[in-house]
Amino acid sequence: MSRPVTAAFLVIGDEILSGRTKDKNIGYIADYLAAVGIDLKEARVVPDDEAEIVAAVNALRTRYDYLFTSGGIGPTHDDITADAVAKALGVGIGEDPRAIALLRERFSEADLNPARRRMARIPQGAELVANPISKAPGFWIGNVVVMAGVPSIMQAMMDEVGPKLRSGAKMHATTLDSGGHPEGDYATGLAQVAQAHPAVSIGSYPSFKEGGGFKNQIVVRGREPAAVEAAAAAVREMLARL
Amino acid sequence: MSRPVTAAFLVIGDEILSGRTKDKNIGYIADYLAAVGIDLKEARVVPDDEAEIVAAVNALRTRYDYLFTSGGIGPTHDDITADAVAKALGVGIGEDPRAIALLRERFSEADLNPARRRMARIPQGAELVANPISKAPGFWIGNVVVMAGVPSIMQAMMDEVGPKLRSGAKMHATTLDSGGHPEGDYATGLAQVAQAHPAVSIGSYPSFKEGGGFKNQIVVRGREPAAVEAAAAAVREMLARL
Repeated sequence: MSRPVTAAFLVIGDEILSGRTKDKNIGYIADYLAAVGIDLKEARVVPDDEAEIVAAVNALRTRYDYLFTSGGIGPTHDDITADAVAKALGVGIGEDPRAIALLRERFSEADLNPARRRMARIPQGAELVANPISKAPGFWIGNVVVMAGVPSIMQAMMDEVGPKLRSGAKMHATTLDSGGHPEGDYATGLAQVAQAHPAVSIGSYPSFKEGGGFKNQIVVRGREPAAVEAAAAAVREMLARL
Repeated sequence: MSRPVTAAFLVIGDEILSGRTKDKNIGYIADYLAAVGIDLKEARVVPDDEAEIVAAVNALRTRYDYLFTSGGIGPTHDDITADAVAKALGVGIGEDPRAIALLRERFSEADLNPARRRMARIPQGAELVANPISKAPGFWIGNVVVMAGVPSIMQAMMDEVGPKLRSGAKMHATTLDSGGHPEGDYATGLAQVAQAHPAVSIGSYPSFKEGGGFKNQIVVRGREPAAVEAAAAAVREMLARL
């Protein structure tokens, strides 16, 4: 089986850290990558600050197979992601004729003012990522994929990029309800199952039930369906013995 | 005016990165800290992996005034946050009699099995953070505050911790609607206002309107209300000139 393909996700934007905007992109990307067989290993949120973006881009792109980013590619002064990514990768950046052509599908020459032309600033050597919603493209350079922050646009860009990603074997997951058993009653047994089934990862997740009390779910995840099923069966037997 | 007080937030848990659970804690902490006058400067999500937790804790606690964490303090084998934090700080960890006493409020001696006793493992020198919901405490050691991952429990723990935090001058924010003007029309003017008002930060945030089209909001943030108001007035005048 091939080595797992890994990724990190970087959310760029003061508005997430100030609480003004609630991030919805981390959860979306997590689902998307899981579905295509890429392991999301880390996510970060950093402000619209060049040094912070450069540091995070370099820390993450060198460590994982892919780095996806969202946010900071609009026309206003706080949109500095493209320049920061170019700086992180040590490449030049300038107005890209392909991006200008895309913007011209939406804006007349007169409306394509200097601010809007900023959205055509693309690092040298990057491929564009089409934006079917509002035209201003994202881009893909090296292993870094730069997307918009508005969730619907990011999702559309991810659909452009997804089919081109190298992916690994998909994770298979089985979720079991603990059947009313509290975590503390099955934790020791679950740890034994986990130890006996090293090919899978097993997590236990409490949440509140409507109407009060905890509901506990046990999730068995792994790349080989047979290994997941064997571990899930062992969890079921362990729960039945309680 | 005193130096701003800064913080980072670390979400610990495979379930966020796999997409199984959608994080709600980053947005909550962002709002909470903004309200008490602490600047959230960075957020990260890492898996239930000791080396990853240790590295993130050390990167963040040394850089910001506070590090808050959520997740990984339950009774199951994947709950390794307390041990990882002790390792990151280079202190010992063991069963804390104060934590055992709290757990005894909920569990009989017979029910306080080895798995549940794991929830009383607290790094040496830490203060406990009370958990009014399910008793198993969080803790506070140095500048690191360790809380549960279940949102309602984390929020209750934050209420315990909040009044004891050193905080700075609160941020004041004014939000202006662009009045239908697209970002590209006001970006240049907004950048000029931002440059003329260095005491505030100005962001522009597009989102989709119900029924189609973009809605743009401009947010002016700063620690001095007069500076925020002056910059907001300048933004209003700039928009009126369009």
